[in-house]
Amino acid sequence: MRPSGRQPQQLRPVVITRHFTRHAEGSVLIEMGDTKVICTASVEESVPPFLKGKGEGWVTAEYGMLPRSTNSRMKREAAGGKQSGRTQEIQRLIGRSLRAVVDLKALGERQISIDCDVIQADGGTRCASITGAFVALQDAIAGLIASGKLASNPIREHVAAVSVGMVQGQPVLDLDYLEDSGCDTDMNVVMTAAGGFVELQGTAEGEAFSRAEMNALLDLADAGICELIAAQRKALAA
Amino acid sequence: MRPSGRQPQQLRPVVITRHFTRHAEGSVLIEMGDTKVICTASVEESVPPFLKGKGEGWVTAEYGMLPRSTNSRMKREAAGGKQSGRTQEIQRLIGRSLRAVVDLKALGERQISIDCDVIQADGGTRCASITGAFVALQDAIAGLIASGKLASNPIREHVAAVSVGMVQGQPVLDLDYLEDSGCDTDMNVVMTAAGGFVELQGTAEGEAFSRAEMNALLDLADAGICELIAAQRKALAA
Amino acid sequence: MRPSGRQPQQLRPVVITRHFTRHAEGSVLIEMGDTKVICTASVEESVPPFLKGKGEGWVTAEYGMLPRSTNSRMKREAAGGKQSGRTQEIQRLIGRSLRAVVDLKALGERQISIDCDVIQADGGTRCASITGAFVALQDAIAGLIASGKLASNPIREHVAAVSVGMVQGQPVLDLDYLEDSGCDTDMNVVMTAAGGFVELQGTAEGEAFSRAEMNALLDLADAGICELIAAQRKALAA
Amino acid sequence: MRPSGRQPQQLRPVVITRHFTRHAEGSVLIEMGDTKVICTASVEESVPPFLKGKGEGWVTAEYGMLPRSTNSRMKREAAGGKQSGRTQEIQRLIGRSLRAVVDLKALGERQISIDCDVIQADGGTRCASITGAFVALQDAIAGLIASGKLASNPIREHVAAVSVGMVQGQPVLDLDYLEDSGCDTDMNVVMTAAGGFVELQGTAEGEAFSRAEMNALLDLADAGICELIAAQRKALAA
Amino acid sequence: MRPSGRQPQQLRPVVITRHFTRHAEGSVLIEMGDTKVICTASVEESVPPFLKGKGEGWVTAEYGMLPRSTNSRMKREAAGGKQSGRTQEIQRLIGRSLRAVVDLKALGERQISIDCDVIQADGGTRCASITGAFVALQDAIAGLIASGKLASNPIREHVAAVSVGMVQGQPVLDLDYLEDSGCDTDMNVVMTAAGGFVELQGTAEGEAFSRAEMNALLDLADAGICELIAAQRKALAA
Amino acid sequence: MRPSGRQPQQLRPVVITRHFTRHAEGSVLIEMGDTKVICTASVEESVPPFLKGKGEGWVTAEYGMLPRSTNSRMKREAAGGKQSGRTQEIQRLIGRSLRAVVDLKALGERQISIDCDVIQADGGTRCASITGAFVALQDAIAGLIASGKLASNPIREHVAAVSVGMVQGQPVLDLDYLEDSGCDTDMNVVMTAAGGFVELQGTAEGEAFSRAEMNALLDLADAGICELIAAQRKALAA
Repeated sequence: MRPSGRQPQQLRPVVITRHFTRHAEGSVLIEMGDTKVICTASVEESVPPFLKGKGEGWVTAEYGMLPRSTNSRMKREAAGGKQSGRTQEIQRLIGRSLRAVVDLKALGERQISIDCDVIQADGGTRCASITGAFVALQDAIAGLIASGKLASNPIREHVAAVSVGMVQGQPVLDLDYLEDSGCDTDMNVVMTAAGGFVELQGTAEGEAFSRAEMNALLDLADAGICELIAAQRKALAA
Repeated sequence: MRPSGRQPQQLRPVVITRHFTRHAEGSVLIEMGDTKVICTASVEESVPPFLKGKGEGWVTAEYGMLPRSTNSRMKREAAGGKQSGRTQEIQRLIGRSLRAVVDLKALGERQISIDCDVIQADGGTRCASITGAFVALQDAIAGLIASGKLASNPIREHVAAVSVGMVQGQPVLDLDYLEDSGCDTDMNVVMTAAGGFVELQGTAEGEAFSRAEMNALLDLADAGICELIAAQRKALAA
Repeated sequence: MRPSGRQPQQLRPVVITRHFTRHAEGSVLIEMGDTKVICTASVEESVPPFLKGKGEGWVTAEYGMLPRSTNSRMKREAAGGKQSGRTQEIQRLIGRSLRAVVDLKALGERQISIDCDVIQADGGTRCASITGAFVALQDAIAGLIASGKLASNPIREHVAAVSVGMVQGQPVLDLDYLEDSGCDTDMNVVMTAAGGFVELQGTAEGEAFSRAEMNALLDLADAGICELIAAQRKALAA
Repeated sequence: MRPSGRQPQQLRPVVITRHFTRHAEGSVLIEMGDTKVICTASVEESVPPFLKGKGEGWVTAEYGMLPRSTNSRMKREAAGGKQSGRTQEIQRLIGRSLRAVVDLKALGERQISIDCDVIQADGGTRCASITGAFVALQDAIAGLIASGKLASNPIREHVAAVSVGMVQGQPVLDLDYLEDSGCDTDMNVVMTAAGGFVELQGTAEGEAFSRAEMNALLDLADAGICELIAAQRKALAA
Repeated sequence: MRPSGRQPQQLRPVVITRHFTRHAEGSVLIEMGDTKVICTASVEESVPPFLKGKGEGWVTAEYGMLPRSTNSRMKREAAGGKQSGRTQEIQRLIGRSLRAVVDLKALGERQISIDCDVIQADGGTRCASITGAFVALQDAIAGLIASGKLASNPIREHVAAVSVGMVQGQPVLDLDYLEDSGCDTDMNVVMTAAGGFVELQGTAEGEAFSRAEMNALLDLADAGICELIAAQRKALAA
Repeated sequence: MRPSGRQPQQLRPVVITRHFTRHAEGSVLIEMGDTKVICTASVEESVPPFLKGKGEGWVTAEYGMLPRSTNSRMKREAAGGKQSGRTQEIQRLIGRSLRAVVDLKALGERQISIDCDVIQADGGTRCASITGAFVALQDAIAGLIASGKLASNPIREHVAAVSVGMVQGQPVLDLDYLEDSGCDTDMNVVMTAAGGFVELQGTAEGEAFSRAEMNALLDLADAGICELIAAQRKALAA
């Protein structure tokens, strides 16, 4: 039995609230149980220097945690003067995951900046960020289409992310903080609606893991991603 | 007539939601119209080096804005590697305002760290931060009392803050962003329940302002603070 | 009786020395008793990016203290790698105060950078900086007029600053360090020759202050500013 | 046919030179074809603060590239004032990979710092770093045993790393720079001698990848790791 | 003829003003013609970590230039967030030069921090800093002796510094800015009263210089140092 | 007798390996006994802003030490976020030394960036860097000539560097770390093939040094430089 009383293959309740804040072109609050992340998508009609004049767009991401989103207060990164390695790793992951499903040429010479800010953390914040950010990105692009700036949608397919892990010898889906801090193996899986892998990051916290264990974890992830993409579709249809 | 249709002496709707996030000892979402700030209070059983061994406590504050809390996306301060002068000015103001109503000796050798994070901005974020942070501070201290760590409440009285300004020649209360960016004089007033001034920061954006204008503004502020403290009391009583 | 033997409404001796250093377009040493600040005004024929092409000028300020301007040596900010929140707050105040009396359109597309460097501190350094910087600014602008780069003076009126405070229950003018560190209320007042307020920053260090106390303090400030502006005029006439 | 003329399942020539520099307790030059990395292991008889007094050791890693290890000169990170997100991601990976095979309690309260400095890059620098660092770590620990500071070897098993990827539709082992920059999928695999996974990081650069493709890649990686561990053993036996 | 009308072997007028500011244990304004530097010496009853418990003292130095000490305004290093290479080079030189004449064991476990702040620059600021700092250091040590904290003077002999250079083929003493920026060879010479060299830094700006030229320059420096040490003695006797 | 068994006037074995790494236009490993430095020269077809449009080139240098090039591990400067004063001092010296022998106008509007990275240190790393960097620079320029980008060689003459010092009362050439850390006087001498001085940096670590001692040291340096330039020529002829 999991600490939360969930079944091994059970996601936490997923709530996706669109239009959460007023200013951003896309603004989503995603809740995966007690993990809550505000994901915004901001459209800028310019691209970073390395893309100037190439007729191509860019999608980038930044990630942060409010200092007291966690159980004990973390140092504020802006006050400390730099982003931690973990923060940079996560925001690079979010950016790559979203770019993987966007036709950057079709986006045109503009940039969409994703901000994922965790207001309450209970494990799985990077996966929730990707899943929520996709919805914010869709809303931002819908706005570009509505205003005539884009003729068609450059998003090729849905993308979502979920964590899986071996907890006390058992593969489980969507780890919360308690499970995450005690697990042997932790894997973050980013997949498309068509079931392709976009990113796969597995780490043996204790014992190395076997191919069989990995396969069991990927089966769980596959099913979880389907549910998450269904939740994205439902939110976008609302 | 004000852009929002409000009367000169009318506050925006104030909503104070306690226990907004789960981990902090005090956690409040304060909404002043479209301005929304998460204020948390975190108790740490240690003090900064300059207070070690003096038997006194400390209250400090940090402030931030989510990059897309504003109309156009601001650079993330953590990514830029430093907090702006404005940010530092605001967080110093919040800290001083709260310390002014706390008996630091009675707090004992512990620190309460306030974090004010703006998730949506429409003017008046520093004032909303102070008003909301006071409630979070009360909740954190109530927890210390409930757990037997404090025998009595070191908070001497309520404190709240509001902005006032001369907009097109007229004194108005609680400026929103539109008014704030176009006003002649902008004043942030921090007051106690007993009507004493804790902080007063007035700036002539265009013309210098007269003593008479200042008095009119302070009358408005005085009335506004009363309403805000009533809102704090109501929230704390809930 | 004040520690310095002054009357409550008595300024410290004010000495304003123009042409203190050789290179700057305006260079002033201002002494308010033992507080000594070098204020220079540097003309640059370009403006910051946000003003490019708008036909408008800019006045900005930076502030610093020599490490041993104070009683115990302070860390050198350049070595520490950043300016403190206090430093930034003060230099923003100086800049705003000067811009309030300059017609930036009439200044033309150029920037005047003010540097206020405290070589000896005894309280009131930010006020002395503003009062001295105004004279340096006048000299720099006189140079622009003399060289034919400006047809008329874009300065609308004099501006000066002084601190006032409640010390042991009594309102006093122009606090020195001893008074400043022990006072209940400290207020920095920036005013024009015409008696308008440009900036007003009051802080209750201990007890909150009343409207009556504030009025008494502003009366003192008003008289003090008159004397300071007289001293500016005398120096400029020399 | 691969650009280098290699077979899909063929590693580049691996050369592991021990005792490459004089001062470090372990010092290895690893060459994977044209990729050359100096890996040193430095023993320090203290641990980071979070481990003080816990009777446990630590293994950590830092990574860097000489500015002209690459085809066009990169900015020197020390001059720029910070390590890139990529650098931090890599050094965190190296540290986790090595810690996964060390019994930190058995290491005792000391830290081994790994430095991986790329002097010439042709793809796969993070994998070469891990494979080479393991040998440097072994040498450093052998020294601790020889000097009587450790009674037995806290290393549980060999660990090595290799990249695999889908290049033009074909799974290949040990990508060089040319392949790496043109591939569809890139996966870094860190495995133990017993065939367990320690880290798995797959990224779809273009198209998402399927489970079948991933399995083909992991088969290649498995075989490659065996060869790399054989090369480690041979070097350590010399 | 030199631009200033001086003879090749002629120093600029040297003025050394002791007790220039009030707070520091030693405070000197040194003027070498138009070059003006405030040199303070601050006594701290502690030493840097690497000297803790060794019964030895330390003398260290920091150097800065006011932004408008120069002909065109320099960026303020505190605002830029770091000290330039030139600044660091100079402050290291000042520190080494002073330590060379102090018996650090006899100083006892305390640190004297020298601050050299250039308020007006016309070439030779690093040399003026050393010559002036020596006098400030003497005053600070005299205070330690007067207060009974030191039994005898740990300063072994006077030290002073001067620049020499080849200007248009001729060796000259004590270069001003005009000469310095146009010279072929520039040499900073730090010497003791006994005529020993403490530091020697020669740079060929254009053509390399010969041994004969160097000897001519050192003869000039030798004589200049004698005059400077006489000026130090006279100031200290006043 | 010197610790290494060398005669006072004896250099350590000098080995200069060209084409040490593959990517740089010039790449040299220089070994002076146990001191080993990788020197690369990178050609960039642009110049720093201050030279834009002046038809002149630039040669600049950066210097670094691998963390474990030294006996005990040094902090990695990239991780610490800044280059030390020593690092900056050395890289400025290398840059000036090389520029002294290059006709920058003849180089044309391009920059050659020198990187000197110490992989093993045993004293004299800055001198070895200069001597090795000169060879890398020659190779980079030979490439420009070979490709037709330069018609003739802008290098005027060879430059090399060596340290000399007073060790236990005796002048010796080319100090290793043991001698360097125990010597009374340490002098770094940069000279041209024609015997001119480019840079001269002498420091009395203990006692001040006399003119006679300096002359003895310069005689040693002169002879050492001749040998080093012969080694450069031999390497370039190979």
